[in-house]
Amino acid sequence: MPKELYFEDFYVGQTFNSLGGAKVTAEEIKEFGQKYDPQPFHLDEAAGEGSFFKGLAASGWLTAAIVMRMRVQTVPVVGGMIGAGVEEIRWTLPVRPNDIIRSEIEVLGVRQSSSRKGFGIVRTRTLVYNQRNEQVMRSVVNFLAPMKTA
Amino acid sequence: MPKELYFEDFYVGQTFNSLGGAKVTAEEIKEFGQKYDPQPFHLDEAAGEGSFFKGLAASGWLTAAIVMRMRVQTVPVVGGMIGAGVEEIRWTLPVRPNDIIRSEIEVLGVRQSSSRKGFGIVRTRTLVYNQRNEQVMRSVVNFLAPMKTA
Repeated sequence: MPKELYFEDFYVGQTFNSLGGAKVTAEEIKEFGQKYDPQPFHLDEAAGEGSFFKGLAASGWLTAAIVMRMRVQTVPVVGGMIGAGVEEIRWTLPVRPNDIIRSEIEVLGVRQSSSRKGFGIVRTRTLVYNQRNEQVMRSVVNFLAPMKTA
Repeated sequence: MPKELYFEDFYVGQTFNSLGGAKVTAEEIKEFGQKYDPQPFHLDEAAGEGSFFKGLAASGWLTAAIVMRMRVQTVPVVGGMIGAGVEEIRWTLPVRPNDIIRSEIEVLGVRQSSSRKGFGIVRTRTLVYNQRNEQVMRSVVNFLAPMKTA
């Protein structure tokens, strides 16, 4: 585990790449779909065939959740990563069974928080790719980081 | 199940309320945390006590996933609800074990898709409340709906 980071340790242009890929299995796609996004194309191969996705595809919210896990594994914030809001998520290609996804995180901005004393806000872009280096998702997400000087 | 909706059935100001509340258990918080957001305050009551959240709290991505399920249950789009991107998510209060959350969806805009022939884009705001009617999340999400005239 790399050393934990305070707000002051973040800077614009800093990058964090996921340490490996995450394989997204048909089982995980269906299990997540049943719980949180119960639509035919997230539940069943055959039903997916006749749909917009022309096959089984991961819920975008499953992809977003896997990307959160990568963020936690990749960016060690002192006290944990506390979300401060999402500015954008785009799902640019379906994630299919057995796709292996990875993420690249770049710091776009750092600023003090006006509402949370002792914290700064780190603004990040995350690009998510499959094993063919096709972009499947991108997002802009903010999180809090405690100030060393607080 | 209400009748399925085409793009032409959506209009600005239209609302869809979740049919009931979803109880968020400590078990679900921990299970989701272990899989997708493995941080102490999503995994363990005692570890959560010493954290920013002062106790166990749901991952914001779990809340977002539950809200997606409510969206599927509440807004019956012909062919299924295909995400066309998120413009904003804000988590305004922690979701705690045994909180019961509900959602109110309002259509903010409708427009034809320039990239997806035969589809329109429905822009929606979702407000999410707990059992004390405190807002815990809000979001602006777009989805595709097929055109009846296509």
